[in-house]
Amino acid sequence: MSPTTTASAIVSSSSSSSYFTLFPLTSASPKTKPTTKLSFNFSKTQPRNLTLSTKTTTTTTTIRSAVSIEKEIPEAERPNTFLRESDDHDSPSSSSSSSSTVRSRFEKMIREAQDSVCKAIEGADGGAKFKEDVWSRPGGGGGISRVLQDGAVWEKAGVNVSVVYGVMPPEAYRAASASAELKPGPVPFFAAGISSVLHPKNPFAPTLHFNYRYFETDAPKDAPGAPRQWWFGGGTDLTPAYIFEEDVKHFHSVQKSACDKFDPTFYPRFKKWCDDYFYIKHRGERRGLGGIFFDDLNDYDQEMLLSFATECANSVVPAYIPIIEKRKDTPFTDQHKAWQQLRRGRYVEFNLVYDRGTTFGLKTGGRIESILVSLPLTARWEYDHKPENGTEEWKLLDACINPKEWI
Amino acid sequence: MSPTTTASAIVSSSSSSSYFTLFPLTSASPKTKPTTKLSFNFSKTQPRNLTLSTKTTTTTTTIRSAVSIEKEIPEAERPNTFLRESDDHDSPSSSSSSSSTVRSRFEKMIREAQDSVCKAIEGADGGAKFKEDVWSRPGGGGGISRVLQDGAVWEKAGVNVSVVYGVMPPEAYRAASASAELKPGPVPFFAAGISSVLHPKNPFAPTLHFNYRYFETDAPKDAPGAPRQWWFGGGTDLTPAYIFEEDVKHFHSVQKSACDKFDPTFYPRFKKWCDDYFYIKHRGERRGLGGIFFDDLNDYDQEMLLSFATECANSVVPAYIPIIEKRKDTPFTDQHKAWQQLRRGRYVEFNLVYDRGTTFGLKTGGRIESILVSLPLTARWEYDHKPENGTEEWKLLDACINPKEWI
Repeated sequence: MSPTTTASAIVSSSSSSSYFTLFPLTSASPKTKPTTKLSFNFSKTQPRNLTLSTKTTTTTTTIRSAVSIEKEIPEAERPNTFLRESDDHDSPSSSSSSSSTVRSRFEKMIREAQDSVCKAIEGADGGAKFKEDVWSRPGGGGGISRVLQDGAVWEKAGVNVSVVYGVMPPEAYRAASASAELKPGPVPFFAAGISSVLHPKNPFAPTLHFNYRYFETDAPKDAPGAPRQWWFGGGTDLTPAYIFEEDVKHFHSVQKSACDKFDPTFYPRFKKWCDDYFYIKHRGERRGLGGIFFDDLNDYDQEMLLSFATECANSVVPAYIPIIEKRKDTPFTDQHKAWQQLRRGRYVEFNLVYDRGTTFGLKTGGRIESILVSLPLTARWEYDHKPENGTEEWKLLDACINPKEWI
Repeated sequence: MSPTTTASAIVSSSSSSSYFTLFPLTSASPKTKPTTKLSFNFSKTQPRNLTLSTKTTTTTTTIRSAVSIEKEIPEAERPNTFLRESDDHDSPSSSSSSSSTVRSRFEKMIREAQDSVCKAIEGADGGAKFKEDVWSRPGGGGGISRVLQDGAVWEKAGVNVSVVYGVMPPEAYRAASASAELKPGPVPFFAAGISSVLHPKNPFAPTLHFNYRYFETDAPKDAPGAPRQWWFGGGTDLTPAYIFEEDVKHFHSVQKSACDKFDPTFYPRFKKWCDDYFYIKHRGERRGLGGIFFDDLNDYDQEMLLSFATECANSVVPAYIPIIEKRKDTPFTDQHKAWQQLRRGRYVEFNLVYDRGTTFGLKTGGRIESILVSLPLTARWEYDHKPENGTEEWKLLDACINPKEWI
């Protein structure tokens, strides 16, 4: 089934809403790089572009599609792949050096990562099991949402993968294309990703978030010379309520090791991006103690970046589970719990006010329950709460206000 | 002290951020009425206007001012008035028929309403007292924040008044002015309001929100013929976790009585606006069971609308306190409490994702603790929670999805 043969197909697999459905947790970039960021015409942080696009017919389609986006269909079983048949193997025009496409290998990677992370979580939790929801869209694509709620160790743990086919308005593609003379029609794209937030119960055990994603456009059908675009994005970051320096060092060391295998500039650069992205502006503090975050990454070899994203996804378990094992049974008081709940409130503030994936997803008809699985089970807001100077609570806040070099 | 004599004064009492600081809970309108809505060039729901303004020098000032907004100064005592001296009595050019200005009488009204609501809350709570924070800004204006937290009846109750002097960019004023030929400088404005959210502990006792506000511009200094603008806004709405039809009928009857004293069209019109405004788009449901909401109201006699706003503010106690008295000690189970907490989650979603006052206030440097006092003390998000058909929880959800005529 072709995505662009009929108007209804375009509407039903709308570009922007599908894209953000895919990346409910963090689909955004701390930097601006308009030459490769196609879908960001729809970010509320870029009103100029948004205004430009509202003047066009095609975006009217997109806006309509945000309302009439093709509903997900629950599936009884996981399919072997969410890819359309044509994407499963290389076409002669593909630039990939491998026998199967990057799309196909990326989907395989994120599904394996979902399995291994969920297995590790269930293992550490010691009894609770993930509830799985499989869904698909008639035009192609789908996803697997897994949620473990009210376990022994985790209050709420969500690990989602999705594969989305969409169509972006031609202006977006034109902005990214070298030749402004080309007037392509709507540009089909493919996006796949894994995203996860893990909120433990024990206030000394940190929350973890990660997501890794791959985005690729088809060449526009009525402008055969226009280039195909692709990029990788993602990150892993740690949000404790209390600092155990050895835990934070361990976490950052694993991120650095993953980065260093590919490029020595990656860790410092992606740590900085992470600190910038998770900044809660109205608080003047970050959501947590950071990690790595990258977006729009396409200025390296594609195979290298696929390996890098795979390495990052595979680093989640060794970076996180040892910390959980160490902290999950630490005795705590009501005060410790209340502080954790206040920090969970900050998590909610960040995700609902600033996170571009969440806010865009909510406003454009993404799968709500997958998007909001990032929210903790419980959160708390106290009026004018300020930890006393020098306390453990103050130390955490201080580290969120003044990001540190942990290793 | 004049607000427009120096550039720093303009920056320090920035229009948009000050305006939204004032109305942290609901400063927005369900309808679009550009001829009178001056400050709404800054609403994120109007990207076209926002884009236009970012092209101008004056808005650059406003954007900078959002960062460098003059910090509130804590005050030890409540002043008699937050008005500048010149606003306290009529100038010869004033169109007011009374011996004191509308500004002055509106401030007096909201401060009396704050006192009477807080007194009623403390009375019903039976022991807990409001904590008061008084603040001012050097350029004029200030406010009184009152919060009662963890009382016997209320989990969190905030009642804030504020008076703000600001300067709006001339484009905004020009858009509202009859003559497009005028090129006025920055337009000083005055805004005052009361806003409140009351979250009880008992899951059968409903949350109440209300806010009433008055906005007025000065005539632009370098365009003496340009008209002065003013309007009223506000509303009161009820958000229960469980429906007691007699409570909802009582609440809406009081709103209708207040409306009917002034205009028979007010209640149906403002009930509809309220249902529209509190729509959580991504849920397809309203935050609660509505009430009344109006904004940009200036197409009636000014004295009449001042009386109407006063009547509405004075209706808060008789509309709400009898319901609390009836429900505050109702026995409840953990399941009732969990459902209330899930509905609190919806409250947080609405306030952080959609409420224009909250989101704009947070992003532009308003007084955070006053803005976020609207959030409940605690909230909860469960994955894919759906109440069973026909249950009491389902009935509430159904009424939020399909707004009813209660009286």
